[in-house]
Formats: sequence, structure tokens, C-alpha cells
Amino acid sequence: MTALGERPPRKDALSKVTGAARFAADLVHPHELVAHVVRSPIAHGRIVSVDTARAARVAGVRAVITGADAPWLYNLALRDQPPLATHRVRYVGEPVVALAAEDPDSAAEAAGLVEVEYEPLPALLDPREAMRDGAVLLHPDLESYARDNSFTPIPGTNICNHFRLGKGNPDKAMREADHVFEDTYYSHAIQHAALEPRATTALWDLDDRLTLWSSQQSPWFALNDLSIALGLPQSRIRLVSPYIGGGFGGKHGLGSEPVAVALARSVRGRPVKLVYSRDDEFMAGLVRGAVHIKLKTGVRADGTIVARVAEVVWDTGAYANVGPLLCRNGSYSSTGPYRIPNQAIDGYCVYTNKIVTGAFRGYGIMEMAFAYESQMDSIARALDIDATDLRRRNVLRDGDETSTGEVAQSVGLEAALDRCAETIAGWGPVERPNTGRAIVVTAKSSVAPSGSSALVRLNDDGSVTTYVSTTEMGQGSQTVMAQLTAETMQARLEDVSVVSSDTAMTPPDRSTSSSRSTFHMGNAVTRAATDAREQILEKAARMLEVGERDLVIADGMVSVRGVPEARLTFAELASIRPGLDLGSIVGRGSFVPSESSPMDLKTGYAPHIAAFWLYSSQAVEVTVDVETGQVQVTRVASVHDTGRTLNPDLCEAQTEGGVGMALSAALLEEVLLDGDGAVGNPDFDSYRIMTAADMPPIEAAMVEVPHPNGPYGAKGMGEGPTTGIAAAIANAVEDAVGVRIRTLPLTPEKVLAALGASQ
Amino acid sequence: MTALGERPPRKDALSKVTGAARFAADLVHPHELVAHVVRSPIAHGRIVSVDTARAARVAGVRAVITGADAPWLYNLALRDQPPLATHRVRYVGEPVVALAAEDPDSAAEAAGLVEVEYEPLPALLDPREAMRDGAVLLHPDLESYARDNSFTPIPGTNICNHFRLGKGNPDKAMREADHVFEDTYYSHAIQHAALEPRATTALWDLDDRLTLWSSQQSPWFALNDLSIALGLPQSRIRLVSPYIGGGFGGKHGLGSEPVAVALARSVRGRPVKLVYSRDDEFMAGLVRGAVHIKLKTGVRADGTIVARVAEVVWDTGAYANVGPLLCRNGSYSSTGPYRIPNQAIDGYCVYTNKIVTGAFRGYGIMEMAFAYESQMDSIARALDIDATDLRRRNVLRDGDETSTGEVAQSVGLEAALDRCAETIAGWGPVERPNTGRAIVVTAKSSVAPSGSSALVRLNDDGSVTTYVSTTEMGQGSQTVMAQLTAETMQARLEDVSVVSSDTAMTPPDRSTSSSRSTFHMGNAVTRAATDAREQILEKAARMLEVGERDLVIADGMVSVRGVPEARLTFAELASIRPGLDLGSIVGRGSFVPSESSPMDLKTGYAPHIAAFWLYSSQAVEVTVDVETGQVQVTRVASVHDTGRTLNPDLCEAQTEGGVGMALSAALLEEVLLDGDGAVGNPDFDSYRIMTAADMPPIEAAMVEVPHPNGPYGAKGMGEGPTTGIAAAIANAVEDAVGVRIRTLPLTPEKVLAALGASQ
Repeated sequence: MTALGERPPRKDALSKVTGAARFAADLVHPHELVAHVVRSPIAHGRIVSVDTARAARVAGVRAVITGADAPWLYNLALRDQPPLATHRVRYVGEPVVALAAEDPDSAAEAAGLVEVEYEPLPALLDPREAMRDGAVLLHPDLESYARDNSFTPIPGTNICNHFRLGKGNPDKAMREADHVFEDTYYSHAIQHAALEPRATTALWDLDDRLTLWSSQQSPWFALNDLSIALGLPQSRIRLVSPYIGGGFGGKHGLGSEPVAVALARSVRGRPVKLVYSRDDEFMAGLVRGAVHIKLKTGVRADGTIVARVAEVVWDTGAYANVGPLLCRNGSYSSTGPYRIPNQAIDGYCVYTNKIVTGAFRGYGIMEMAFAYESQMDSIARALDIDATDLRRRNVLRDGDETSTGEVAQSVGLEAALDRCAETIAGWGPVERPNTGRAIVVTAKSSVAPSGSSALVRLNDDGSVTTYVSTTEMGQGSQTVMAQLTAETMQARLEDVSVVSSDTAMTPPDRSTSSSRSTFHMGNAVTRAATDAREQILEKAARMLEVGERDLVIADGMVSVRGVPEARLTFAELASIRPGLDLGSIVGRGSFVPSESSPMDLKTGYAPHIAAFWLYSSQAVEVTVDVETGQVQVTRVASVHDTGRTLNPDLCEAQTEGGVGMALSAALLEEVLLDGDGAVGNPDFDSYRIMTAADMPPIEAAMVEVPHPNGPYGAKGMGEGPTTGIAAAIANAVEDAVGVRIRTLPLTPEKVLAALGASQ
Repeated sequence: MTALGERPPRKDALSKVTGAARFAADLVHPHELVAHVVRSPIAHGRIVSVDTARAARVAGVRAVITGADAPWLYNLALRDQPPLATHRVRYVGEPVVALAAEDPDSAAEAAGLVEVEYEPLPALLDPREAMRDGAVLLHPDLESYARDNSFTPIPGTNICNHFRLGKGNPDKAMREADHVFEDTYYSHAIQHAALEPRATTALWDLDDRLTLWSSQQSPWFALNDLSIALGLPQSRIRLVSPYIGGGFGGKHGLGSEPVAVALARSVRGRPVKLVYSRDDEFMAGLVRGAVHIKLKTGVRADGTIVARVAEVVWDTGAYANVGPLLCRNGSYSSTGPYRIPNQAIDGYCVYTNKIVTGAFRGYGIMEMAFAYESQMDSIARALDIDATDLRRRNVLRDGDETSTGEVAQSVGLEAALDRCAETIAGWGPVERPNTGRAIVVTAKSSVAPSGSSALVRLNDDGSVTTYVSTTEMGQGSQTVMAQLTAETMQARLEDVSVVSSDTAMTPPDRSTSSSRSTFHMGNAVTRAATDAREQILEKAARMLEVGERDLVIADGMVSVRGVPEARLTFAELASIRPGLDLGSIVGRGSFVPSESSPMDLKTGYAPHIAAFWLYSSQAVEVTVDVETGQVQVTRVASVHDTGRTLNPDLCEAQTEGGVGMALSAALLEEVLLDGDGAVGNPDFDSYRIMTAADMPPIEAAMVEVPHPNGPYGAKGMGEGPTTGIAAAIANAVEDAVGVRIRTLPLTPEKVLAALGASQ
């Protein structure tokens, strides 16, 4: 019996579909207080005075705190953000005062009595303006912030990271190219729009131990940030992350935690619960920020790309969050999945007076691929080369060098492209008017180096528990980790349970992000299960008095080869016994991808920057209503290189979910600001997202190019489905009606305007 | 820096003294239902009919269940107890119907509408009557119950275990003895009277996973029982035990859990919370049951004991619970801490129609020592030998054989006796009239074989977390486990945190009982910490490029011997790193005392029945008011062999607590039944316990005879202080006023009556 490649029921299925699953906001803690946050009404300004005296006198109010009460800064890349604004507010919605009260009414009443006087400063809402000389500085103290040395802020500017990559001689290559294409693209700001709002309950107990129950994708990442920020040892902090109702990057890193922790510290001994309203989510959650991309590409007449020069401006909003890392990984990906010998890339991560940019499924590649795959079709059209052939000519193959100098291995790009092209071929000829098709290829790296650890315990009854800090946020990690455990130990899948994401219990893991869990945690689980299996065999050999090599392990049992009646079940092997000084069986496993030397900050050279790559090819068919400009996506093909498909159901579900998200982002969604920098569409009436009813048929397919370092050859694929859709739609629109849209979203207004201009 | 033997602050100090610590009843779970139990009003009878229809119609009621809805039996020794009575009720207070409702009022209203019709049966309230031929059988199906084969029920009787021990030739030895003493003693029923009542919240989720948050001393013991009873793998059950507000054995094994689980199963997906009222505690908690003891002892003229014949009847109440094991361990201990070559012991564990007997601190030895140490003073008086000398003549020494054939080792009895005698000598001459003194010695075995496991994790910041399933119920286990971890790893004590008792996370442990945690879990923790230390040294050797033998580990740091600047802190060593394929550092450790062959059920021969022995000597001074019969204890000396005192504060606190409990039990407490078998004093007005104000001065002292298998020589001592007090008081009363009381408690009425009879 093997559990891999099968379609077993999800471990969390029944709880989820019946509504019994618990999320952070569901948890009730004895004697808990309710938190309320007073937010900045202006985008940029100095705080002249804060008067909390009247608020503090409201019956039931237990704490009213300001920035002065929480004098610490967070964000692992660059410590620039206080839990509550101190001296200066930097976006509409920034927390300024926080209250904890016995009940929501008292909290709201008190919040209404807080008086804050501001002195407005000019608000910078466009990162390109924020980069200009003489622009007002959002963070005059930028130089003094503690930071990760992998990034390069430019003191005296609003640029919190300037990423540079250079290889070959791009100037020369451009001069010698037969054609040079230069285009500008714009990817817009969108919301994660998770069904579950952020929620944290924090308890700072009287022994100075901090416990958080939080909707947190990456418990150890968040814990590490808090530990450094608070100067509190990791062993005194416990972060419990229950089921997450949609993360998509938005719940990676500190979100609702800092304010909850600041309040909890001020009312030590009582839990403080902060649950975001949908309004809070829109005003003060996180967004995928806007990106301005200039791409210049030198091409030979035969379609071979010889040079790329890119300038990418990433709007990180008021604080860094993951911006510096996003800027780096996104910018070096402007190469696309192509072999380009000469490159010059500049990425700028820029502060603006806007809601903060966070991680978002695809991590820059939805944005970058919109640019590079749009331009690929422009090139194909200009050179009159078939768009698929053009891609085939340039696509990375095993042994090629990536932009950062990595030698590509087990590259499933061409296999995915072939499979996707085959799917389109199956669609037959286009029959409706104003209908077009397009195919794209994309690549996304998974973050490295980053570690994961797991434990596997054989219980007394022979059942198995696997401990991981990977959070279950819908992706199905509990099921995959159980499959890997069962396969490796030859346990029965139904006997394996997965306990996840309680830092007091489950061992360290960098994050549940970057499509990394199957690869990183999957390896850790496989190693832990191997360790447990070895202990099982060692013990069985002693008990059966044979050599380990004479043993067969299968189906939760160990038997002597050729003597099937000489056997021990896992239950018989599990219990600790006197005389066999082996202890209870706990397997441990850790995984860190191969040694990485730091990136060369001048050239961007970093041959181990990626743990593995996600390779995808996607295609769409669209029909454009030339009267209204409405773009209707009628078919989608979405092909992903999984290395090995451990669970087809889950890969297909990830594909459908990711494509849906990307369609919605490309066509409908956009976070709009009013003139004062406030979010203008802060609810689901004005911020429209696609629903199940709007979805076209999606043909999901997986190709398998085994990764030498993946568990059983597998790697992650969760972000792949989001990456190529926007470009594919833009390209299909041009195929359908001959107009090129280079800014997202692809609204009917833009299409109509372009059609008008082209007539 | 060594953490052992010091008096560091308790790890749980601040939480406890400020009231911030959480106990099971404090926990609130989302959407929880309230449980209510309808109990039997009669001691014995057949259930003719149960009508729950009206109850079920009350608004807010979500479930009304009877025994038919929970057709499973529990108790690990002998599966004789259903969660809810089926067909037959066996004691006043037995659960018959259980309800779960949205609120307590609906639950209570519905409970009032349940109609049960009973057909009464004769109630057996005295175990000696229950043993008689022709007595009505409480458990006609006794033979059919699954059971532990270490015990011997007698089918067709109410005897659920008949323990037998025989060695030498007691008949011949009695005939040849110079003197034979034959006495009968009675130890009464008492309550654990823990401040915290029992409480369980159970959630049976829709994926068939059962989670319990429960006031449970021994989470794995309880989980194991539930797993077998329900046929649910251990990996599908999670038992979380928060701080416990007093256990004393009463929270060892299933208590409030079965009814909560039965209800949870019937309302799958919603938590059900059952919190005992004080009334429930008294009617349907557990008690230390009454014991009838006959002791016949053959002695030579010089005081040497040559033979003992004992018959001990243990009243286990309506169900077995731990009764069969208690009967075995208590009965073989009727030998006392003495070398007796010829013995015949019969112990009977007998069902009666009374509240169930559970484990109780001292586990039979408070009862048995009252008998054997009372008789020792009678012997001394009859033979005119000094009572201390008589004990010294007979006391076990290294190399002697115990009753079950064990060879005694590292016996601290004489050392304790000497130290206690020295303390009495320091009291000076007796000065008040009607005042007497007495000294006793006792021995108590700790259960074997039984296993414990622990994990120790080095966190990324160099702090350490130790994982144990030992519950913190006031004894200070978290502090001791942290001390052992710190000492073994040479970590700083303040950097060590202990996570305890969540079976999903903390590895298996038999129980927090039997004074076993310091010895068993202490060994497991020490082994786990040793494993972690070895990993630390291995990694440090690789990183510093030296041999492991060149390294020094101290104070959370590893340095090269003689090169103190070549060093790595635990923080530097903790993080997982590429290139060093060692993984994150998790140490594991398990401990099971040496191999035990099963007891010979005919002779009681079992040379490894004890993991270690608690040895104690205690003395009291009493003054008797001859007008009222009131016995006032004016001084107590309490000396215990700790092997090694790891934490003097905690050993002294255990001594004071245990002596207080024993004084209260000997003088004041008794569970009284009315004529129908109902508890007649079910509250703290009518059931009196001693308070801090009533306590005499207690002189606690420890002697240290290192145990070869204990961690750093240490062993447990928590039960020792309870064992000798009752006998010491009875002996001191005779010393004071010349009357001998052989039944507990030592009430003024009994003393007055005896004084009257002796005049």
C-alpha cells in the first residue's frame, strides 16, 4: 500500500465542511478583554497630542495605550514599524491608540473619547514621486533601523531597498540586437480578501510568558520577530495557530499580533482579543502593492532573447514588512523563465503613505509575469513568430543559468508548455467572433535558505502522530504530511494524525509560504519518519532476535522476511519496555536546502537563492464584447510541474483556487484610494471579487519532472496557478480584438478606450 | 552553576499566587454546552424504566442520554464501570442520565423532568458482609469483564481481587515464637477534598477526533483507558491537562471524563463542559475507602519479628477503579518496613454499594501503617522494649529481602529513624500532663514497571523547552524538571521552560502518581537533556573544528578547553544550518525501571514490583484533654529519605502538606453514610478538614541515601509525609493517657470512651 499519488480523504474534511473547525476568532479565553483600535484618519502627519484621559475613565476600560507604551519596532527585514504610531502617522488606518475593555460597547464608547491632534504632512501616494529628490521622508530615521544585511536601503530617500543585478554586457548586447522592445507595465494593488479576518488573542502572564492564539500562517516567523522586538526569549513565547480561513500571504508575519501584544503587556494576566472587522481588513490589513515595471528586451531576428534591462518600482506602503525581500525576489524574476545572457535589473522598494504591502500568493511573479509574458507576445507579433515557438526557443532547460547564476536543474518548463499547448489543441478551432487565445510560461523561486523540522511519534497503540509547524490554511498540508509519514514508515494512512502549528509543541519551521511546505517540511517529515522507521526496525530486530536486514516493514507491521508469522505490529513495538533500553520512538527530521553564500549585493549573484522553482504553463480563451469592453474568460488550461504529484486532488484544488484568484485580480479587483489616501472601496460591495458562479471551466494538469532534492521527487506548486493568468488574458485580448492593455486590471473601460483608439 | 539542591523560585509561582493560573473549569470553549447529570437516589437497584422524552423537549437541550447511548466500560485494572448506569445502579450518586444544554438553567429544568423508575435491591455497605456467601452480587458479570491478568477476581462473589502472599512457614514460626500478637484495626473512609472540583470539557469533532481539557493528574493513563474503552486510536485522542488545583490521587484515572465524553459523542462538533459541584464531589467523586486489617505477629523475646499473618479487606465501593492494584500494593505492605522471614498475607478487594474508592496519596500505606506501627508499639510495651530500639532491631537494611522477594538497596530507614530520634531528643523532657510522644517508621513502594518519556528542545535563541506529561498539581514538578534539564545541559535555569501535559504534544508517561515523577520522569528528562547536550557538543565540535573531548559546556555556552575566546553560545548553536546536516536539536529520553517478571499470583513473589521505596520516620507529641477526649498534636517531626534533595523548598512543602493532610485525616475527617447509603456529610460544614490555623509546628528534615538509579541519586518523597502520622498519634495517645485506639479517626468520643473503660 502506498499513500502517495492517491486521492485519500482530506484529514480536515469533515470539520471544514460542517463548520466545526475552529479559527482564531472562534476561540474564547476566560476573562478575556476586547481590544479596540483608534486609527489615523490622515495619510501622513505629526502627532501633536494624544488625550486618553476621558477614555480611560469609561467604566469597563482596563487599558488605554499609545505608542509610548509599546516602544518597540518589528519587521524582520527592516525594523521600521511600531505597534502604535509614535510621533508620526504614515497611512490612513494606522493604529494610534489601543484600548482593552470588558466589553465591545465600553471599548467603542471609550474609543470615541480619545482625542488626537495631528499636524498634516504632504502625503506621498505614488512611489515614483516618493523616489524623487526632495520628497518628504516617511522614515527620516531609516538609517538607524536594525535590518537584515541582505538589503540595501538608501539613506535620505524613501527607498528601503535597492536591488541590483548585472550580468554579461547588456549595453553592448542591446546595441547588437536586431530588435529592442521597450515597454512599461503597471500591476495594481489588490486585497487578499480572505474569508477569515485577522484575529489575535494575546496573554502576557504574570510569569512573563506570552501566549498568542492567532490567525498566523507562519508561527515561527512571527514568533522570531516578536522575540527580537520584545527582547523575550523564544521559550517564553508560545504562538498557537489554529486552522486559518485563507492566508494567501496576508497572514505571513506580524499582522494583528503587535497591538494585541502591546495591550496584553499592559494588562498582564488577562487575555486581550483583537478581531479585525472587514473595515479593519481593508483599511489596515495588508495588500499586494502596486508595481511599475519598465522592460527593455534585445532580441535577435530569430527570436532569441539576448538582453534584458528592467527597472521595477515596488510600492511597499508605509512600512517595509516583506517589501525588501519581495523587491529582490520579484525583481530578479523579471528575466522570466528564460535564458538571457545579458541583464541589468534595478528594483526599488519604496515607502508611500499607503496601507502596507505584504506577501501575496505568487510573491511578485503575478506582477512580473504580467509584464514579461505580455512583452513576449508583443515580440512574437512584431517578429511574426508563433508565440509558443518563441517561448520554446528561449525557455530555460537543464544546465542553463538563471538570472542569479544558478544552474537550472530538473526544469519542467518545456514539459508544461507542451502539455498546455496540447490542451489548447484539444479546444479545436476558435468559433466565436472577437475571441482569442494565448499561452504563457512562468517560473517562480521558493525562498532559500530556510529550515523546517518535524517530529514523528509512534503512539502506544501503533498509531502515529506527526508534529509540524506548517499551518493548515486550506492547502491540505495535514493530508500531505500524513501521506509522507505513512509512506516512509509504511504505516496505514488512517493511523497517522498531524498536529500542527503550536510553537510550544511543534518544532521550528521558517514559514508556511512560498509554496515551500511540501518540499521543505515534506523533507523534514520524511527524515523524521525515516528516523522513526529505523528505530522501529532496530527494536524489532532485538525483539525478534534477527538482523535488521532480515526484516520487512509494511502496513503498520514488521515481519521476518520469508517468515510472515514472525511479526510484530507497530502497537507491539511502540510501548517502552524495560530491558530494551531504546525508549519511546520519536523520529526527528530537519531540512535546509544546500549551503547558500550571501548574495553579492552589487551583481545579484547568488547561485543558491532558490530552494526549487515552480514551473507553469497556462492558457486562456477570451471573448471580448466590443460594445461594452467586457472580457469574458471562457476556458483556462493550467499546467504545473509538481516534480511528483503526491495528491492529485490537492494539486487540482490549488490550481482551481489559484486560477480563480488570478482571474479575479486581473479583471475585477483593485484597491482604490480617495484623494486623501484612504481606501475608497473598503467592503465587498465596492471591492468586487469573483465568485464560484463567475468561474470558467479550468483544465488542470500536472507534469512530473522529479526534483532530486524533493521528498519522493516532489516540490511545491501552490503559487504557480496565479502567475500567468493576467498576461495570458492581456495576450488573448490582443489576439481577439487587436488591442494591447499594459495596466491592470483589464477593465471594460480600458478595453473600450483602447478599441476606440485603435479604430 | 548548578541548579540542584538550590531554592530557586518556582516556575509557576507568580501565576499561582496572583490567581492568573488556569484550571480546567476556567477554560471556556466556543459554542460549549453545559452538562448536567441525573444521579441515582438509591444505593442498589434495577433500573426499570427511564423516560427522557419531556426533558428532551425543553428548549436549549441538545442531548439527553442514558447508559444505552454509551455502551462501553472503563477502568484499566478491571473494565467494570459504565459512564452511565445500565440496568443497575450501584451507589447513591451514580450517573444515570446525562444532559447537554445551551445553558445551566435549561439543563437543570430538563434534569427535573427525567423520570427513572427503580426496583431496589439490598444494599451492601460493609465489605465484610459483602464477602459472605449468599450476599447479593453487585457485578453478576464479574467474570466476563476484561481485566489486567495481574489480578484475581473470585467469580460468584463480590471480591474483585484476592491478593495472596506467602513466604517461609508462618504457621511453624508462630508456634515457635515467644509471643504472638493479634489485633484488628480499622482505617476509615475520607475525601480528597481538593480545592478544585473535577472538570472536563470534551469535544468529539466531526473527523472523529476526541479532545479533552480535564483536571486529570495522569493524562496518558486516562487516555489509554479511553482509547481502549472507545476503540479509538490514541492518536485520535488528545487530553490537555492544565494546572490542577489539588489531586492527591483523586484525579488519577477517569473521573469526570466518561460522562463528558459520552455527551460529546452524542452532540459531535460541540464541546461539552462538565464541572462537578462540591455536592457532586462528595456524592460521586472518589474516596479513600475504608480498610479492615487483622494483624497477627510472632515475636521472639528479644523483639525480633519472626512471622506475620495478615488479612486485609479493602472496600472498593461500587466499581474497581484502582482497587485491585491498591489491594495488592497495600496488602503486601502489611509487612511494614521490616525484615520478616515468614509471612502469609490475604488481601481482598470487595465491592460495596458505596461511592468508589480511588487512589489516595499514600496509596494504602496511611491505612496499613496505622495498623503495623500501632501494633509495634503494643509489642514494645508488652515486651518492655524501647519502641525505637524495637524498630531498629527489625528495620530493613541493604541486602535484606522485602515481602515480595526484592533485595533492598540504599535503604534510608535507619538514617531517617536516627534523624527523627535526634529531633525528638531536641524537644527536651515532656513537661505538660497527659502528654505523650511516639516515633514511627514507614516504607512505601513506587509502582513498577512504568515508563516515562521526555523531550528537550533547544530553541533558536538558545533557550530550552522541556516537554513532559507530568502534571503540575502543586508539587512543583515544573521547577524540578527545569532544574534537572539545566543541570544536565549546563543551561541557565532561567532559560529553561517546561511544557506539560498535553498528550498531543508531550510524550507518554504512565502517571503523575505514586511519588514517581522525580524518579521516573526525572530520569527521562535527564536522558533527554543528555541527548541534547551530546548533539550540542557534536555540532559545536564541527563548527569550532575541534574534537568533542576538547570542549567545555557551562552556563549556556560551549568553549574550547583552554581557549575561552573560542566559544559558541547555545543561541549560536541552536539554529539549523545548511551544510551541517544535524537538524534542530531535540533530545529524547525515556526511562523504565529494570525488567519485571509478572508477580507469582500464588506466592506474591515479585522481586521488581517497586521502582524504588519511600522511607520515612515521623514523630509526634500529643496532649490529651482527659475531660473532653480532645487530642491536640503539639509537635511533629517528619524525616524522609530523598536519595538526594533536588529542591529543599519543595521537599519541605510536600512534608508540611502531607503531614497536614494526615493529621486532618487521623483526627477530624470521615465520610459518613446515612442508613440508605447516601453520604451524610457532603459539604465542608459537616465534613471538617484542618486549616492552616489548626496546624502544629512541623519540623521537616531530609536524609540523603543516594539511589543508584535515581537522577543524580534522587527519588520521590511526596507521599512519605502522610504515611506514619495516624499511628504516631495513636501511639502517643497511649503514651500520654494509657489507652489504645485501633479505629480511625481518633475522635474525642473514642478517646473519652476508652478512658472511661480503662478507669
